[in-house]
Amino acid sequence: MPFIPLEEHLPGITGLLEYRQDTAKPIRELTHFLLRGPSSLSEGERELIATLVSYRNECKFCTAAHTATADRLLGEPLTTSEMKYNLETAAMSEKMRALLQIAARVQISGKEVTDELIKKAREEGATDVEIHDTVLIAALFCLYNRYVDGLATVAPAQPEFYTCLAERLTNHGYIRLPQGYDHLKKK
Amino acid sequence: MPFIPLEEHLPGITGLLEYRQDTAKPIRELTHFLLRGPSSLSEGERELIATLVSYRNECKFCTAAHTATADRLLGEPLTTSEMKYNLETAAMSEKMRALLQIAARVQISGKEVTDELIKKAREEGATDVEIHDTVLIAALFCLYNRYVDGLATVAPAQPEFYTCLAERLTNHGYIRLPQGYDHLKKK
Repeated sequence: MPFIPLEEHLPGITGLLEYRQDTAKPIRELTHFLLRGPSSLSEGERELIATLVSYRNECKFCTAAHTATADRLLGEPLTTSEMKYNLETAAMSEKMRALLQIAARVQISGKEVTDELIKKAREEGATDVEIHDTVLIAALFCLYNRYVDGLATVAPAQPEFYTCLAERLTNHGYIRLPQGYDHLKKK
Repeated sequence: MPFIPLEEHLPGITGLLEYRQDTAKPIRELTHFLLRGPSSLSEGERELIATLVSYRNECKFCTAAHTATADRLLGEPLTTSEMKYNLETAAMSEKMRALLQIAARVQISGKEVTDELIKKAREEGATDVEIHDTVLIAALFCLYNRYVDGLATVAPAQPEFYTCLAERLTNHGYIRLPQGYDHLKKK
């Protein structure tokens, strides 16, 4: 049971974003800019960063939500699965592997990111902005995972919950559309 | 030297907030709402949470900046000093100690926050919103500390840098005033 009174039909982060809407708005915006804004990383690649950090922070809700979203965006469920099992051997571009290695260090501490890891990412073609965004996405999910688990929110057990959430995050992103603007949402 | 090209005269977080201004805006807003918005916790008490988390994440820039800001808001430098040395014995209200104990657990992982710690905070008079905000402020500084150190930003050695920054954060908060609106800034 959550430590504070949250609406029962809104598990995980969803209840927290309703609980205090003034703080929810910039959290949603930051996430939307980073994960859905213009970028040379695909939306699926950015969701991989969110997934790996949430998985290593052992945040059940965020791991399930972003795994489902990454799987949907990538069109296959193998990459998330392999990445969790072993990042070093998972089938993916070497640039993406290098960026995920940076994200994995950020999950532990910013101080764990080394010159060598940055050099490797650059050698594989990563740009300054991609390195910046990887670090900030990883840091943002360290916030989310702590927010979700630090207030003991509930993670639904049904996989269908996360496939529905993934559909929403794929079609509408992280920004909340104002009520009455449903016709603007992507179909 | 930072891993990405940042303006040399803008150390720590300040260069990062210039580097990508679309993501900086919601980060600034979230921080301003949490640390300067209406709250039953004083601005000084909220800066203590930022200071403790940054200190335990060993983030030099954020620790120095928020220590100086907390000291200025509290009007004395003993609380930050004692809190870093031993949270259990530092002179402060029992409610604030209980909230800082929660923040210290969030710094490690959201999963470290226990029913007992929440119960203790409530017994000392903490409200739902205070518990919520403590967790979210602690989580936000886990983001900041990783962002600042994960990109290897520079932390100035001169104490004067942080006293100047603390003056700005005390008088103007975390929102960036548009250019030309300097007359609106608090004196």
